[in-house]
Amino acid sequence: MSQVLVEITVSLDGYVTGPNAGPGNGLGDNGEALHTWIFEGTDEDRAALDRSFEQTGAVIQGRRLFDVIDAPDGWNEEMGYGATHEGERKPPIFVVTHEPPATTRLGDRFTFVTDLADAIGQARQAAGDKDVVVMGGGEICHATLAAGLADALVLHVAPVVLGDGTRLFPAGPGPRVDLELTSAVSTPNAQHLTYAVRKSA
Amino acid sequence: MSQVLVEITVSLDGYVTGPNAGPGNGLGDNGEALHTWIFEGTDEDRAALDRSFEQTGAVIQGRRLFDVIDAPDGWNEEMGYGATHEGERKPPIFVVTHEPPATTRLGDRFTFVTDLADAIGQARQAAGDKDVVVMGGGEICHATLAAGLADALVLHVAPVVLGDGTRLFPAGPGPRVDLELTSAVSTPNAQHLTYAVRKSA
Repeated sequence: MSQVLVEITVSLDGYVTGPNAGPGNGLGDNGEALHTWIFEGTDEDRAALDRSFEQTGAVIQGRRLFDVIDAPDGWNEEMGYGATHEGERKPPIFVVTHEPPATTRLGDRFTFVTDLADAIGQARQAAGDKDVVVMGGGEICHATLAAGLADALVLHVAPVVLGDGTRLFPAGPGPRVDLELTSAVSTPNAQHLTYAVRKSA
Repeated sequence: MSQVLVEITVSLDGYVTGPNAGPGNGLGDNGEALHTWIFEGTDEDRAALDRSFEQTGAVIQGRRLFDVIDAPDGWNEEMGYGATHEGERKPPIFVVTHEPPATTRLGDRFTFVTDLADAIGQARQAAGDKDVVVMGGGEICHATLAAGLADALVLHVAPVVLGDGTRLFPAGPGPRVDLELTSAVSTPNAQHLTYAVRKSA
Protein backbone atom coordinates (compact mmCIF):
# COMPACT_ATOMS: atom_id res chain seq x y z
CA MET A 1 0.00 0.00 0.00
CA SER A 2 1.17 3.49 -0.74
CA GLN A 3 2.89 5.27 2.12
CA VAL A 4 4.36 8.70 2.68
CA LEU A 5 8.00 8.30 3.65
CA VAL A 6 10.41 10.89 4.92
CA GLU A 7 13.73 9.50 3.68
CA ILE A 8 17.05 11.23 4.16
CA THR A 9 20.69 10.66 5.02
CA VAL A 10 21.77 12.13 8.32
CA SER A 11 25.05 12.44 10.20
CA LEU A 12 25.56 10.99 13.68
CA ASP A 13 24.98 14.47 15.06
CA GLY A 14 21.75 14.98 13.16
CA TYR A 15 22.76 17.06 10.15
CA VAL A 16 21.49 16.46 6.62
CA THR A 17 24.11 18.84 5.20
CA GLY A 18 27.32 20.41 6.44
CA PRO A 19 27.58 24.21 6.72
CA ASN A 20 27.25 26.53 3.72
CA ALA A 21 25.01 24.23 1.67
CA GLY A 22 23.59 25.61 -1.55
CA PRO A 23 23.79 25.27 -5.34
CA GLY A 24 27.25 23.97 -6.22
CA ASN A 25 27.74 22.73 -2.65
CA GLY A 26 24.59 20.70 -2.17
CA LEU A 27 25.71 18.71 0.87
CA GLY A 28 27.60 21.60 2.42
CA ASP A 29 31.20 21.67 3.61
CA ASN A 30 32.47 18.14 4.31
CA GLY A 31 28.95 16.88 3.64
CA GLU A 32 29.91 14.56 0.77
CA ALA A 33 30.82 11.95 3.38
CA LEU A 34 27.10 11.58 4.05
CA HIS A 35 26.71 9.91 0.66
CA THR A 36 29.60 7.46 0.77
CA TRP A 37 26.96 4.74 1.08
CA ILE A 38 25.47 5.84 -2.25
CA PHE A 39 28.62 6.34 -4.29
CA GLU A 40 31.07 3.89 -2.70
CA GLY A 41 28.65 1.58 -0.97
CA THR A 42 28.57 -2.15 -0.40
CA ASP A 43 26.11 -4.50 -2.07
CA GLU A 44 23.84 -4.00 0.92
CA ASP A 45 24.02 -0.22 0.54
CA ARG A 46 23.21 -0.62 -3.14
CA ALA A 47 20.25 -2.85 -2.28
CA ALA A 48 18.91 -0.20 0.09
CA LEU A 49 19.16 2.37 -2.69
CA ASP A 50 17.58 0.09 -5.29
CA ARG A 51 14.72 -0.74 -2.98
CA SER A 52 14.06 2.95 -2.50
CA PHE A 53 14.07 3.64 -6.24
CA GLU A 54 11.80 0.67 -6.94
CA GLN A 55 9.21 1.63 -4.36
CA THR A 56 9.13 5.35 -5.07
CA GLY A 57 6.16 6.52 -7.11
CA ALA A 58 6.51 10.25 -6.55
CA VAL A 59 8.94 12.59 -4.85
CA ILE A 60 8.49 15.72 -2.74
CA GLN A 61 11.24 18.31 -2.43
CA GLY A 62 11.74 21.67 -0.83
CA ARG A 63 12.76 24.63 -2.91
CA ARG A 64 16.32 24.89 -1.66
CA LEU A 65 16.96 21.27 -2.56
CA PHE A 66 15.41 21.82 -5.98
CA ASP A 67 17.79 24.73 -6.58
CA VAL A 68 20.71 22.45 -5.72
CA ILE A 69 19.68 19.67 -8.09
CA ASP A 70 18.69 22.06 -10.87
CA ALA A 71 22.13 23.72 -10.73
CA PRO A 72 24.62 22.78 -13.49
CA ASP A 73 26.46 20.36 -11.20
CA GLY A 74 23.20 18.89 -9.91
CA TRP A 75 21.33 15.81 -11.02
CA ASN A 76 22.13 14.12 -14.30
CA GLU A 77 21.61 10.80 -16.04
CA GLU A 78 23.78 9.09 -13.44
CA MET A 79 22.68 10.83 -10.28
CA GLY A 80 19.52 11.28 -8.27
CA TYR A 81 15.99 10.50 -9.33
CA GLY A 82 17.03 11.94 -12.69
CA ALA A 83 19.27 8.95 -13.21
CA THR A 84 18.39 6.31 -15.74
CA HIS A 85 17.36 3.06 -14.11
CA GLU A 86 16.67 0.32 -16.57
CA GLY A 87 13.01 -0.59 -16.74
CA GLU A 88 12.03 2.06 -14.24
CA ARG A 89 10.02 5.10 -15.05
CA LYS A 90 11.32 8.26 -13.47
CA PRO A 91 9.00 9.40 -10.71
CA PRO A 92 7.34 12.81 -10.95
CA ILE A 93 8.67 15.38 -8.52
CA PHE A 94 6.63 17.91 -6.59
CA VAL A 95 8.49 20.95 -5.35
CA VAL A 96 6.96 22.94 -2.52
CA THR A 97 7.58 26.62 -3.16
CA HIS A 98 5.79 29.94 -3.25
CA GLU A 99 7.98 31.15 -6.10
CA PRO A 100 8.16 28.66 -8.98
CA PRO A 101 11.16 29.22 -11.25
CA ALA A 102 10.52 30.55 -14.79
CA THR A 103 12.51 27.72 -16.35
CA THR A 104 14.29 24.59 -15.13
CA ARG A 105 17.35 22.83 -16.48
CA LEU A 106 15.77 19.48 -15.67
CA GLY A 107 12.58 19.82 -17.67
CA ASP A 108 8.98 18.93 -17.14
CA ARG A 109 9.17 16.25 -14.49
CA PHE A 110 8.74 18.96 -11.89
CA THR A 111 5.48 20.35 -10.58
CA PHE A 112 5.57 23.39 -8.32
CA VAL A 113 3.03 23.46 -5.51
CA THR A 114 2.67 26.13 -2.84
CA ASP A 115 1.35 23.95 -0.02
CA LEU A 116 2.96 20.87 1.51
CA ALA A 117 -0.28 18.98 2.16
CA ASP A 118 -1.45 19.75 -1.41
CA ALA A 119 1.86 18.54 -2.77
CA ILE A 120 1.54 15.28 -0.85
CA GLY A 121 -2.03 14.86 -2.12
CA GLN A 122 -0.96 15.34 -5.74
CA ALA A 123 2.02 13.07 -5.21
CA ARG A 124 -0.23 10.34 -3.80
CA GLN A 125 -2.38 10.51 -6.92
CA ALA A 126 0.70 10.27 -9.13
CA ALA A 127 2.31 7.48 -7.12
CA GLY A 128 -0.50 4.98 -7.46
CA ASP A 129 0.34 2.04 -5.23
CA LYS A 130 3.95 3.08 -4.85
CA ASP A 131 5.28 5.34 -2.11
CA VAL A 132 5.56 9.09 -1.87
CA VAL A 133 9.06 10.02 -0.73
CA VAL A 134 9.77 13.33 0.95
CA MET A 135 13.46 13.45 0.17
CA GLY A 136 14.60 16.77 1.59
CA GLY A 137 15.91 19.16 2.47
CA GLY A 138 15.82 19.04 6.20
CA GLU A 139 13.17 21.69 6.57
CA ILE A 140 10.49 19.97 4.51
CA CYS A 141 11.26 16.58 6.07
CA HIS A 142 10.81 18.11 9.48
CA ALA A 143 7.64 19.93 8.41
CA THR A 144 6.15 16.68 7.10
CA LEU A 145 6.80 14.91 10.39
CA ALA A 146 5.60 17.89 12.43
CA ALA A 147 2.35 18.04 10.43
CA GLY A 148 1.68 14.35 11.05
CA LEU A 149 1.81 13.62 7.31
CA ALA A 150 4.45 10.88 7.35
CA ASP A 151 3.78 7.15 7.69
CA ALA A 152 7.43 6.24 8.05
CA LEU A 153 10.85 7.76 8.61
CA VAL A 154 13.72 6.20 6.68
CA LEU A 155 17.10 7.33 7.95
CA HIS A 156 20.46 6.49 6.49
CA VAL A 157 22.77 7.32 9.38
CA ALA A 158 26.28 7.99 8.11
CA PRO A 159 29.28 7.54 10.43
CA VAL A 160 30.28 11.18 10.29
CA VAL A 161 30.09 14.12 12.67
CA LEU A 162 29.53 17.40 10.83
CA GLY A 163 29.29 19.80 13.76
CA ASP A 164 27.25 22.34 11.85
CA GLY A 165 24.87 22.65 8.90
CA THR A 166 21.20 21.87 8.33
CA ARG A 167 19.59 19.82 11.05
CA LEU A 168 16.83 17.31 10.33
CA PHE A 169 15.29 18.18 13.66
CA PRO A 170 15.97 21.83 14.50
CA ALA A 171 16.45 22.61 18.17
CA GLY A 172 13.23 23.47 19.91
CA PRO A 173 10.02 21.78 20.87
CA GLY A 174 8.62 19.04 18.66
CA PRO A 175 7.69 17.33 16.59
CA ARG A 176 6.85 14.73 19.17
CA VAL A 177 7.20 11.59 17.11
CA ASP A 178 6.51 8.07 18.31
CA LEU A 179 8.59 5.74 16.21
CA GLU A 180 8.76 1.98 15.89
CA LEU A 181 11.69 0.32 14.19
CA THR A 182 10.52 -1.88 11.32
CA SER A 183 13.79 -2.58 9.53
CA ALA A 184 17.51 -2.12 10.09
CA VAL A 185 20.45 -2.88 7.83
CA SER A 186 23.97 -2.10 8.99
CA THR A 187 26.91 -1.46 6.70
CA PRO A 188 30.22 0.29 7.37
CA ASN A 189 28.85 3.27 5.43
CA ALA A 190 25.42 3.72 6.97
CA GLN A 191 22.79 2.37 9.29
CA HIS A 192 19.71 2.00 7.09
CA LEU A 193 16.83 2.39 9.53
CA THR A 194 13.11 2.38 8.83
CA TYR A 195 10.74 3.56 11.53
CA ALA A 196 6.96 3.50 11.34
CA VAL A 197 5.54 6.79 12.61
CA ARG A 198 2.97 5.80 15.21
CA LYS A 199 2.04 9.34 16.06
CA SER A 200 3.45 12.77 15.40
CA ALA A 201 2.31 16.25 16.21
CA MET B 1 43.76 -4.23 25.48
CA SER B 2 42.42 -1.39 27.53
CA GLN B 3 40.62 1.29 25.57
CA VAL B 4 39.02 4.61 26.38
CA LEU B 5 35.39 4.48 25.29
CA VAL B 6 32.87 7.26 25.10
CA GLU B 7 29.61 5.38 25.66
CA ILE B 8 26.23 7.02 25.85
CA THR B 9 22.61 6.70 24.80
CA VAL B 10 21.45 9.29 22.31
CA SER B 11 18.14 10.18 20.67
CA LEU B 12 17.69 10.20 16.90
CA ASP B 13 18.12 13.94 17.00
CA GLY B 14 21.35 13.80 18.97
CA TYR B 15 20.27 14.50 22.53
CA VAL B 16 21.58 12.63 25.57
CA THR B 17 18.88 14.16 27.78
CA GLY B 18 15.60 15.97 27.23
CA PRO B 19 15.19 19.56 28.43
CA ASN B 20 15.44 20.55 32.11
CA ALA B 21 17.78 17.72 33.10
CA GLY B 22 19.17 17.78 36.63
CA PRO B 23 18.99 15.97 39.99
CA GLY B 24 15.57 14.30 40.26
CA ASN B 25 15.14 14.54 36.46
CA GLY B 26 18.35 12.97 35.28
CA LEU B 27 17.31 12.29 31.71
CA GLY B 28 15.30 15.48 31.37
CA ASP B 29 11.69 15.88 30.28
CA ASN B 30 10.55 12.84 28.25
CA GLY B 31 14.13 11.57 28.40
CA GLU B 32 13.26 8.28 30.13
CA ALA B 33 12.46 6.84 26.71
CA LEU B 34 16.17 6.92 25.97
CA HIS B 35 16.67 4.08 28.45
CA THR B 36 13.87 1.75 27.38
CA TRP B 37 16.62 -0.53 26.05
CA ILE B 38 18.08 -0.75 29.56
CA PHE B 39 14.91 -1.21 31.59
CA GLU B 40 12.57 -2.94 29.16
CA GLY B 41 15.06 -4.30 26.69
CA THR B 42 15.29 -7.51 24.72
CA ASP B 43 17.85 -10.22 25.37
CA GLU B 44 20.08 -8.51 22.84
CA ASP B 45 19.76 -5.20 24.66
CA ARG B 46 20.61 -6.95 27.90
CA ALA B 47 23.64 -8.56 26.26
CA ALA B 48 24.86 -5.14 25.14
CA LEU B 49 24.53 -3.87 28.69
CA ASP B 50 26.21 -6.92 30.21
CA ARG B 51 29.10 -6.68 27.79
CA SER B 52 29.59 -3.08 28.80
CA PHE B 53 29.59 -3.90 32.52
CA GLU B 54 31.97 -6.82 32.03
CA GLN B 55 34.52 -4.83 30.05
CA THR B 56 34.44 -1.69 32.15
CA GLY B 57 37.39 -1.29 34.52
CA ALA B 58 36.86 2.36 35.45
CA VAL B 59 34.33 5.08 34.77
CA ILE B 60 34.64 8.79 34.05
CA GLN B 61 31.78 11.18 34.76
CA GLY B 62 31.15 14.88 34.58
CA ARG B 63 30.04 16.75 37.64
CA ARG B 64 26.45 17.34 36.56
CA LEU B 65 25.95 13.63 35.96
CA PHE B 66 27.50 12.86 39.35
CA ASP B 67 25.02 15.22 41.01
CA VAL B 68 22.18 13.34 39.28
CA ILE B 69 23.33 9.91 40.39
CA ASP B 70 24.25 11.05 43.90
CA ALA B 71 20.74 12.49 44.37
CA PRO B 72 18.30 10.45 46.53
CA ASP B 73 16.56 9.04 43.43
CA GLY B 74 19.88 8.33 41.73
CA TRP B 75 21.88 5.14 41.58
CA ASN B 76 21.17 2.29 43.93
CA GLU B 77 21.81 -1.43 44.23
CA GLU B 78 19.69 -2.07 41.16
CA MET B 79 20.70 0.79 38.93
CA GLY B 80 23.83 2.09 37.29
CA TYR B 81 27.41 1.14 38.01
CA GLY B 82 26.34 1.12 41.64
CA ALA B 83 24.21 -1.93 40.94
CA THR B 84 25.22 -5.32 42.25
CA HIS B 85 26.38 -7.65 39.50
CA GLU B 86 27.21 -11.09 40.72
CA GLY B 87 30.89 -11.85 40.54
CA GLU B 88 31.76 -8.40 39.26
CA ARG B 89 33.64 -5.83 41.24
CA LYS B 90 32.18 -2.36 41.00
CA PRO B 91 34.43 -0.15 38.91
CA PRO B 92 35.97 2.95 40.49
CA ILE B 93 34.51 6.21 39.25
CA PHE B 94 36.44 9.38 38.48
CA VAL B 95 34.46 12.58 38.51
CA VAL B 96 35.88 15.58 36.68
CA THR B 97 35.14 18.71 38.71
CA HIS B 98 36.81 21.78 40.11
CA GLU B 99 34.59 21.68 43.19
CA PRO B 100 34.50 18.27 44.86
CA PRO B 101 31.49 17.80 47.14
CA ALA B 102 32.09 17.68 50.90
CA THR B 103 30.23 14.39 51.22
CA THR B 104 28.57 11.91 48.87
CA ARG B 105 25.61 9.63 49.40
CA LEU B 106 27.31 6.94 47.37
CA GLY B 107 30.50 6.59 49.40
CA ASP B 108 34.13 6.11 48.58
CA ARG B 109 34.03 4.67 45.09
CA PHE B 110 34.34 8.19 43.75
CA THR B 111 37.52 10.11 43.13
CA PHE B 112 37.29 13.78 42.22
CA VAL B 113 39.81 15.05 39.70
CA THR B 114 40.06 18.55 38.27
CA ASP B 115 41.44 17.70 34.84
CA LEU B 116 39.94 15.39 32.21
CA ALA B 117 43.26 14.04 30.94
CA ASP B 118 44.42 13.39 34.52
CA ALA B 119 41.15 11.62 35.26
CA ILE B 120 41.61 9.39 32.24
CA GLY B 121 45.18 8.65 33.27
CA GLN B 122 44.11 7.64 36.77
CA ALA B 123 41.23 5.63 35.36
CA ARG B 124 43.59 3.75 33.04
CA GLN B 125 45.74 2.78 36.01
CA ALA B 126 42.67 1.59 37.90
CA ALA B 127 41.17 -0.27 34.95
CA GLY B 128 44.10 -2.60 34.33
CA ASP B 129 43.35 -4.45 31.11
CA LYS B 130 39.69 -3.48 31.13
CA ASP B 131 38.26 -0.38 29.47
CA VAL B 132 37.83 3.15 30.70
CA VAL B 133 34.29 4.31 29.97
CA VAL B 134 33.44 7.99 29.71
CA MET B 135 29.74 7.66 30.43
CA GLY B 136 28.49 11.22 30.41
CA GLY B 137 27.09 13.69 30.51
CA GLY B 138 27.16 15.04 27.02
CA GLU B 139 29.70 17.73 27.76
CA ILE B 140 32.45 15.45 29.01
CA CYS B 141 31.80 12.91 26.25
CA HIS B 142 32.17 15.66 23.69
CA ALA B 143 35.28 17.04 25.43
CA THR B 144 36.91 13.60 25.39
CA LEU B 145 36.30 13.24 21.66
CA ALA B 146 37.38 16.82 20.97
CA ALA B 147 40.64 16.31 22.89
CA GLY B 148 41.44 13.18 20.89
CA LEU B 149 41.37 11.04 24.04
CA ALA B 150 38.81 8.42 22.92
CA ASP B 151 39.63 5.17 21.15
CA ALA B 152 36.02 4.31 20.43
CA LEU B 153 32.54 5.81 20.46
CA VAL B 154 29.74 3.50 21.60
CA LEU B 155 26.31 4.91 20.82
CA HIS B 156 23.00 3.43 21.81
CA VAL B 157 20.64 5.24 19.46
CA ALA B 158 17.11 5.22 20.85
CA PRO B 159 14.10 5.59 18.52
CA VAL B 160 12.98 8.86 20.05
CA VAL B 161 13.04 12.49 19.00
CA LEU B 162 13.48 14.82 21.98
CA GLY B 163 13.61 18.19 20.24
CA ASP B 164 15.59 19.87 22.98
CA GLY B 165 17.95 19.09 25.83
CA THR B 166 21.65 18.29 26.10
CA ARG B 167 23.33 17.51 22.80
CA LEU B 168 26.17 15.02 22.54
CA PHE B 169 27.66 17.18 19.81
CA PRO B 170 26.83 20.83 20.45
CA ALA B 171 26.30 22.96 17.37
CA GLY B 172 29.45 24.56 16.13
CA PRO B 173 32.74 23.50 14.62
CA GLY B 174 34.29 20.20 15.61
CA PRO B 175 35.30 17.86 16.87
CA ARG B 176 36.25 16.48 13.50
CA VAL B 177 35.99 12.79 14.16
CA ASP B 178 36.83 10.02 11.70
CA LEU B 179 34.82 6.99 12.69
CA GLU B 180 34.81 3.40 11.51
CA LEU B 181 31.96 1.10 12.42
CA THR B 182 33.23 -1.99 14.20
CA SER B 183 30.01 -3.47 15.54
CA ALA B 184 26.26 -2.96 15.18
CA VAL B 185 23.37 -4.66 16.94
CA SER B 186 19.82 -3.63 16.14
CA THR B 187 16.88 -4.03 18.47
CA PRO B 188 13.50 -2.30 18.52
CA ASN B 189 14.76 -0.25 21.47
CA ALA B 190 18.15 0.88 20.25
CA GLN B 191 20.83 0.64 17.62
CA HIS B 192 23.94 -0.41 19.52
CA LEU B 193 26.77 0.99 17.45
CA THR B 194 30.49 0.86 18.14
CA TYR B 195 32.80 3.08 16.14
CA ALA B 196 36.58 3.10 16.32
CA VAL B 197 37.85 6.68 16.46
CA ARG B 198 40.43 6.87 13.71
CA LYS B 199 41.24 10.50 14.33
CA SER B 200 39.71 13.32 16.25
CA ALA B 201 40.78 16.90 16.89
